[in-house]
Amino acid sequence: MSDLAARRTAVAAALADVGAGSLLVTDARNIAYLTGFRGSGGVVLIEDDGEAVLCTDSRYELQVSEQAPDVGHVISREYVAGALGRRRSPADAPIAVEADDLTLSASAALHRELARAGADGAPVIETSGIVEGVRRAKDEGELAVIERACGVVDTAWTELLAGGGIAAGRSEREVAADLEHAMRLSGSDGVAFDTIVASGPNGAFPHHVPGDRRLAEGDLVVVDFGAMVGGYASDCTRTVALGTPGDRLLEAYDVVLRAQHAGVAAVRPGTACADLDAVSRDIISGAGFGEYFGHSLGHGVGLDVHEAPSVSARSTSTLSDGDVITVEPGIYLPGLGGIRIEDTVAVVQGGGRSLTTTSTALAVL
Amino acid sequence: MSDLAARRTAVAAALADVGAGSLLVTDARNIAYLTGFRGSGGVVLIEDDGEAVLCTDSRYELQVSEQAPDVGHVISREYVAGALGRRRSPADAPIAVEADDLTLSASAALHRELARAGADGAPVIETSGIVEGVRRAKDEGELAVIERACGVVDTAWTELLAGGGIAAGRSEREVAADLEHAMRLSGSDGVAFDTIVASGPNGAFPHHVPGDRRLAEGDLVVVDFGAMVGGYASDCTRTVALGTPGDRLLEAYDVVLRAQHAGVAAVRPGTACADLDAVSRDIISGAGFGEYFGHSLGHGVGLDVHEAPSVSARSTSTLSDGDVITVEPGIYLPGLGGIRIEDTVAVVQGGGRSLTTTSTALAVL
Repeated sequence: MSDLAARRTAVAAALADVGAGSLLVTDARNIAYLTGFRGSGGVVLIEDDGEAVLCTDSRYELQVSEQAPDVGHVISREYVAGALGRRRSPADAPIAVEADDLTLSASAALHRELARAGADGAPVIETSGIVEGVRRAKDEGELAVIERACGVVDTAWTELLAGGGIAAGRSEREVAADLEHAMRLSGSDGVAFDTIVASGPNGAFPHHVPGDRRLAEGDLVVVDFGAMVGGYASDCTRTVALGTPGDRLLEAYDVVLRAQHAGVAAVRPGTACADLDAVSRDIISGAGFGEYFGHSLGHGVGLDVHEAPSVSARSTSTLSDGDVITVEPGIYLPGLGGIRIEDTVAVVQGGGRSLTTTSTALAVL
Repeated sequence: MSDLAARRTAVAAALADVGAGSLLVTDARNIAYLTGFRGSGGVVLIEDDGEAVLCTDSRYELQVSEQAPDVGHVISREYVAGALGRRRSPADAPIAVEADDLTLSASAALHRELARAGADGAPVIETSGIVEGVRRAKDEGELAVIERACGVVDTAWTELLAGGGIAAGRSEREVAADLEHAMRLSGSDGVAFDTIVASGPNGAFPHHVPGDRRLAEGDLVVVDFGAMVGGYASDCTRTVALGTPGDRLLEAYDVVLRAQHAGVAAVRPGTACADLDAVSRDIISGAGFGEYFGHSLGHGVGLDVHEAPSVSARSTSTLSDGDVITVEPGIYLPGLGGIRIEDTVAVVQGGGRSLTTTSTALAVL
């Protein structure tokens, strides 16, 4: 059985738990995961025996044949009606929908399509995380692709530093431009998220947009970047120094570095995500910087740059073999600057394996 | 009254039409539009007198004060409860929600938060397009920003061509890398969407991802690219030739060019979007290429690269002063290649004004 068919079978197996005869998959990433199709419009109906049918519109007719050759497909603008036209489960069998994806408007449209398809007798069951649950455990093929996406960021970062790309007098914008250029040439299909280059006081904003500020001696510079490769994301943050930052920033860097290393070292199957968050957070809080670390420690990475599991104090998930997560503690000091250090880490038997591998020791440029 | 306050007042005025005392704004672009806040988490409650309160979490505490200084704000992870805690309309006044944004899961969470906030007596009204309707008519400040975003793509494109960036032997990936680099340096805050560079037969896929294929003599190369500037998008497509493409491709280019120019020329307030689509489509169909133009003619551009109005055969919208739309006919010939020519066009009194201004005559490189 192909990897894709195995995924569909796993989803089908989960349908019994929610009492559904089929699942209408509307989330674009989930559609890609289950069929290989990466168009931006369409739905997939998975039946409880693992059979699937994909419905998309004529814009994607060529693409669907290339990307999803082993799945039956229908070309129609009425995605739901098109897919349901091929449904083999009984007309009154409950249809599960993805409640995390379907908007209220889309849900209303779905019910209208169900009525037109003569399927309005079927109960609709709102479900959450069925495909995402299967997606959590990356198979070998997926791990290899994510490793390539991480290799792209490693290569690009190494080239950026070696080429003097981060230097006093350059703008945040120039740094971002060069880094994204290097990622593309190293194999990125595009950025996994908006690249962050936050220098000096801008570093206190975790999601700063790179602007025209010029890097200056004494700055810490936070660079958060990721590549898409074969549909999968990578996510990495490094913080570097220009000249000699003040003692408080250097102290904070050391704390974040210790917290990050301890976090990565604590990754293993069976560790509760909330406990992992605490490993890093306790180090930061213990050093007196707790109030300056406002975000969670990490998140799953895969087809989405943010996916299950959440690695936060409030998470109820436990790490398991095949998870890929970020470990990214930070300290943000208003007016002064910020530090974040982040790796993408695969959860494997016996521990965690960082897939982003460039040095996290403070580089002074 | 500031532009932002005027927008909130316009939204408040629309609330009477749906019988709501307040609107809970959850769409991130709508939040940015109404308050200036550009964080990725938060909600805004707009009351029917135009007063607004924004609730976001501690990650954005600095950012909200900088970006949305004239709006009251609450810091809480419970966005809805936080915002509703400041509500001044009666406890049983209907609350409108954004049905195009709120997922079924988010809707369920909203109802739980309403209950915790003691507001579960208030009816929830599902609405569609209230803020988007106000967003359609760009004000002078917005037009100026969109024009800057279009200037960025013009500058980057001109530099790419002048520098020999599109040439036989270069890969699609290299072209995309150079173009995005040039956009960044010209002022882009990031790409408005995944850059498309589709060469030779790849041009038949409207949404091709730039890969390692090397451009070759005889190719048409479709390049679709856009910049984000100050939160607003631009969107432009050019198709160029390397050497001498076959007659069928050259004929198709000429048809698309005529269709695009006729479309832009037909833009004016009062024109039905479906009629505008027909102006270009009829030219393509009349030339015998109708079956190879599978997408709609265009879409609105603003905070989202795809927003109202839709310029399609099925659109029921009519263009009005202040709309910004794309005009982007294409022909996609399987196995052979594709052509798309696209401008971002402002709808102004008396006609349409292209904000992307580089030449659309076939450049032979």
